[in-house]
Amino acid sequence: MSVSPFPEINVSPRILLGPGPSMADPRVLKAMSTPLIGHLDPEFLVLMNNMQAMLKQVMQTENPITLAIAGTGSASMEAAFANMLEPDDEILICINGYFGHRMVDMAQRYGAVVHTLSVPWGEVFQPQQIEDALRAHPNVRIVAVVHAETSTGARQPLDEIAQLIHARDGYLIGDTVTSLGGVAVRVDEVGIDVCYSGGQKALSCPPGASPITFSPRAIERIKARQNKVANWYLDVTMIGSYWGSERTYHHTAPISMNYALYESLRLILEEGLENRWQRHRENAQHLWAGLESLGMTLHVHEDYRLPTLTTVRIPEGVDELAVRKALLNDYNIEIGGGLGELKGKVWRIGLMGFSSRRENVALLLKALQELL
Amino acid sequence: MSVSPFPEINVSPRILLGPGPSMADPRVLKAMSTPLIGHLDPEFLVLMNNMQAMLKQVMQTENPITLAIAGTGSASMEAAFANMLEPDDEILICINGYFGHRMVDMAQRYGAVVHTLSVPWGEVFQPQQIEDALRAHPNVRIVAVVHAETSTGARQPLDEIAQLIHARDGYLIGDTVTSLGGVAVRVDEVGIDVCYSGGQKALSCPPGASPITFSPRAIERIKARQNKVANWYLDVTMIGSYWGSERTYHHTAPISMNYALYESLRLILEEGLENRWQRHRENAQHLWAGLESLGMTLHVHEDYRLPTLTTVRIPEGVDELAVRKALLNDYNIEIGGGLGELKGKVWRIGLMGFSSRRENVALLLKALQELL
Repeated sequence: MSVSPFPEINVSPRILLGPGPSMADPRVLKAMSTPLIGHLDPEFLVLMNNMQAMLKQVMQTENPITLAIAGTGSASMEAAFANMLEPDDEILICINGYFGHRMVDMAQRYGAVVHTLSVPWGEVFQPQQIEDALRAHPNVRIVAVVHAETSTGARQPLDEIAQLIHARDGYLIGDTVTSLGGVAVRVDEVGIDVCYSGGQKALSCPPGASPITFSPRAIERIKARQNKVANWYLDVTMIGSYWGSERTYHHTAPISMNYALYESLRLILEEGLENRWQRHRENAQHLWAGLESLGMTLHVHEDYRLPTLTTVRIPEGVDELAVRKALLNDYNIEIGGGLGELKGKVWRIGLMGFSSRRENVALLLKALQELL
Repeated sequence: MSVSPFPEINVSPRILLGPGPSMADPRVLKAMSTPLIGHLDPEFLVLMNNMQAMLKQVMQTENPITLAIAGTGSASMEAAFANMLEPDDEILICINGYFGHRMVDMAQRYGAVVHTLSVPWGEVFQPQQIEDALRAHPNVRIVAVVHAETSTGARQPLDEIAQLIHARDGYLIGDTVTSLGGVAVRVDEVGIDVCYSGGQKALSCPPGASPITFSPRAIERIKARQNKVANWYLDVTMIGSYWGSERTYHHTAPISMNYALYESLRLILEEGLENRWQRHRENAQHLWAGLESLGMTLHVHEDYRLPTLTTVRIPEGVDELAVRKALLNDYNIEIGGGLGELKGKVWRIGLMGFSSRRENVALLLKALQELL
């Protein structure tokens, strides 16, 4: 056997405090080194059943169609739109950050008539704004909202919005990529008809297997479609048959990523949902207090601030990129820069899953103190 | 920390000799336990550059747009159709197995006018048949063919077909899911305009990161599209920007799966392409001789038989499912049953990547001898 001209993987021990991926729990990394078994092996089907049961607990739903998409968070986002939309369907998309714009792009690719409602990046929508928009566009049946905007750090309350939408026989699509596992999501109690997430944030799992759940009402709508879902890989009528009792082969499941998600869900249930949310809250509060004591300003109002992702304004006169580079090169800490409207204006600091630790907060605050 | 009601992952040590996934090389499994780094970390970008350089060598192409789709093999298949097709485009799809039918389903979802050409499952197409079909459908510019049909074990020669298609200014889409890494693919020499594969077969990588390459001509066609690619996640104009020098964020890369693919590509180049193809050929020949000496009949003519996947006819009077169950339960060996037209008629035996080993062939032959 000859020597490869390409070096083996040898990466620095990064402390991932950016918008994602967050650090995977070591138990999750270990689970991925489990040898493969087949995607129709009876032992794998048991794992899938257990994974589904755990996902329902973590997403707080009884929806039978609750599963993991074989792709990263953007794939589960696209699964929501691809399945719920047919050409000329009218949709209202609420934009208060980068991912609202992504929703628009996706919905348009499926031929939907897109109406938008916008507030500045970092703010959230009031129920009355949604109500007014629905009144202005009476044919809208689907409303898409980001619960946790990774680009701004804003947490959008959903309960009242869901009620308004349901009163008009509509459907709520909720993006919980940066909340699930770190902040209460309560799919059934809130009434999120299609709720998706990603593994790489507060679930402490590498990107590549992404939870999604559809309410029975959403599934009825999909079954009543006039056209096939315009996306083969993400067609939930077929994926659901593989995850359901039929076990019809659709595509080969990403075995190792499913091992990873399985172990990350076990870790969440061991810790307990309430404990986990509290840990995320407490570590975020330490971060917020520490940043403010360094004289910095948090971008999002405290009432709507996500514990999983904090946006902090870059102090006057600071070279934001130089600071991020120094954090990475000298301290092995990754944080994120701003996106879109907030580019150059904020840093994004994630405290998600395994990354949400008191010691990480202390280290980052000390490093920032030394650099600023 | 409380005890989880869900057991930890503890799977049997399967010997995977089915149609996929094949066994991942232990070095690949180990690579996946590497801690995560960010998808825009300079160290990750170096890994991506190296991965791309290795992919080009393994796919035998100079195409700048050569990368891994963040999904399983079916996602890279869909990426080919989603990017190359616009509504009302005419396409010729050659069906000689299950995956030809899947291509038809995908192409229709993108609004294409689909013409099909069929031969019995297990046979291959002669160039004259393609020529006749192109003459009958003069507006066809895209022809899709499966190089290695996982459902039948047939290897489709592509050189002459590619020439015919190019003579009409057309494009060849080639499915090499079950050939790449085990059988020569020679993308540039043959002239496959869009060539895709999966990790979980002869690359010895778990499913979840899937190679694809587009010729410069194919990329020109995509850039000249009248409509956006009707699939956001698989839009190669955006994915290519992330893999290219722009490094524009599209979706979060599946870090651990990229580690896995990286290591699997290193292993292939260490072994050497020619050596690897020869290993696959030799082990397949041992299998074929052994099956015939057990009195069994191989389904595909020797001239077109894939070394990576063998279909063998189920002997008269044998309960095929009972044999597969006994192989799995008593010997920990997975082989596959037939799909579609071949359901109940053949077994499918994969000898791919790390699974293609003399000892696996010997064990399977002995087990079959004991069971039949």
